[in-house]
Amino acid sequence: MKKLDETEIIKIFQKGLGKKKFESEDVEILNFDKVKIIAKIDTLVESTDIPSKMKLSDAARKSVVACVSDFASKGVKPKYGMISINLPKTISRLKINEIVSGFKKACKEYDISFLGGDTNEGKEIVFNVCLFGITDKIVTRKDSKKKDLIFVTGPFGYTSAGLNMLLGKKRGKETFVKKAIKSVIKPKPRLEFGLKNKKYFSSSMDSSDGLSTTLNEMSKLSKNKFIINKIPALRDLQDFSKNYRLNLDDLVFNGGEEYEFVFTTSSNNRNVIEKNAKLLKIPIIEIGFVTTGKGVYLENESRLIRLKDLGWKHLK
Amino acid sequence: MKKLDETEIIKIFQKGLGKKKFESEDVEILNFDKVKIIAKIDTLVESTDIPSKMKLSDAARKSVVACVSDFASKGVKPKYGMISINLPKTISRLKINEIVSGFKKACKEYDISFLGGDTNEGKEIVFNVCLFGITDKIVTRKDSKKKDLIFVTGPFGYTSAGLNMLLGKKRGKETFVKKAIKSVIKPKPRLEFGLKNKKYFSSSMDSSDGLSTTLNEMSKLSKNKFIINKIPALRDLQDFSKNYRLNLDDLVFNGGEEYEFVFTTSSNNRNVIEKNAKLLKIPIIEIGFVTTGKGVYLENESRLIRLKDLGWKHLK
Repeated sequence: MKKLDETEIIKIFQKGLGKKKFESEDVEILNFDKVKIIAKIDTLVESTDIPSKMKLSDAARKSVVACVSDFASKGVKPKYGMISINLPKTISRLKINEIVSGFKKACKEYDISFLGGDTNEGKEIVFNVCLFGITDKIVTRKDSKKKDLIFVTGPFGYTSAGLNMLLGKKRGKETFVKKAIKSVIKPKPRLEFGLKNKKYFSSSMDSSDGLSTTLNEMSKLSKNKFIINKIPALRDLQDFSKNYRLNLDDLVFNGGEEYEFVFTTSSNNRNVIEKNAKLLKIPIIEIGFVTTGKGVYLENESRLIRLKDLGWKHLK
Repeated sequence: MKKLDETEIIKIFQKGLGKKKFESEDVEILNFDKVKIIAKIDTLVESTDIPSKMKLSDAARKSVVACVSDFASKGVKPKYGMISINLPKTISRLKINEIVSGFKKACKEYDISFLGGDTNEGKEIVFNVCLFGITDKIVTRKDSKKKDLIFVTGPFGYTSAGLNMLLGKKRGKETFVKKAIKSVIKPKPRLEFGLKNKKYFSSSMDSSDGLSTTLNEMSKLSKNKFIINKIPALRDLQDFSKNYRLNLDDLVFNGGEEYEFVFTTSSNNRNVIEKNAKLLKIPIIEIGFVTTGKGVYLENESRLIRLKDLGWKHLK
């Protein structure tokens, strides 16, 4: 019998609810007669997603920002937000104020109008955020073309390092520790970059479940092979992984929660996209290309090594 | 210092997020250029909202139905649904299947297309349901007119009795026990009635927080006095309250979770509405009228007694 991880549970839902593609895009598309409304629901759970050293204001902000990340990857502006929260009976006014300030910050940062929501009593804090936007067309996960280039919107691996530090193991140089922890508690999705460049993307996907998961999903859905010839890791992360004998590939490809996104694009667009990224100060990295075949492979001194989907799964 | 109940927490949110009317209609209205999208988010929490004797399939169905109730009161058809669930790590496949069957049932019953959602790990089961519809105009809570009649879409008080029974105190005749328990585990909002009659409503509101809360809110927002001259309780509930020395008013007005709604309408519409209700087999009850002044009053042998807002509040 298969283990009940998130993928397996989602399959049971798919089967039961007669929907073939539960969670197959980063967002849900509500087709009404004249318009397409884009919606995304995301949940942050105290016992699973909020390290004890994380402020509640940062956690509240992050619950909104996690949804923004999906909108960024699809090139759609989130316009409205609704929030449903569970709070334990014993929660203090101070903590509620912290939570509110986090939501406020996120809404301001990404220009989201807060519409309302509800509060519930529960055993632990849960933030449930729903964002909405409108669009004619979203960039899909599945339409990469052969010879397309593969980009990410920033370096990977810091969140994995940062989470370990937040869980009590502070390691490495102070500047690195700060940067790694910041990547966990203050993620900053590249919304503006997504909005301004979506027309150049053949496919895209939010990477918050882990880069290996994202690449495998995009490769599988487009029925193309993805070759990764550059690992999106900066020098400081490489040093950290050496010093502490951690596997660099694991940090970069299997961590998750980066809230960056992956996109594919024709090589004709390379110049304009790089120019736009520079203007917006987004450190995009070209990590490989699309070709005939299937699977995701790491190119290492002209050898190809299969990159398996080892990203984050809940309930595993 | 004020106690931190739901109303107080909502005020902190209102103030912090710069929104004057947090939760001031039953649904949220998303204004896009050409259309109004109606959205509602609702949460069912295991430790608070699911009595241990309630099946998970009924709980899952109810989490959808609770949102449908708000749509019914506003006369809007819910078209799409998204579901985000928290599940404990130890949950069994059997329980997941039960949950899925409950969602499926609700979607089928109210013709809702299920779009997707996500699953999360948490300490307890949480169902977070978001429904969406489209409309030109919703019926507000605030526009009752003087001389309007006040109706409810069905009898009240069974849920209060039924919840006690589910919590272990089975009392009364078997048929009554069945009816009362059914009112808790299988609520049936009057969606079709709302859709077909909204044009006659001057104001309306879902009553699931308790009838006294609903009437007070509608009276306050419309700056009118509401006189209640008929208590919407059937004979079997009256007998039950006498036999067990329970306060009938308390059962009827302060229980909550009935998933009926209250509406006001001009007396010119009485006949057509009653005819429509009969066709749809909805047992609507005329309970009073709107007049000049403020507050909600129970008329008892020509004496007027103030009906206070004593409905359900979370976190109280």
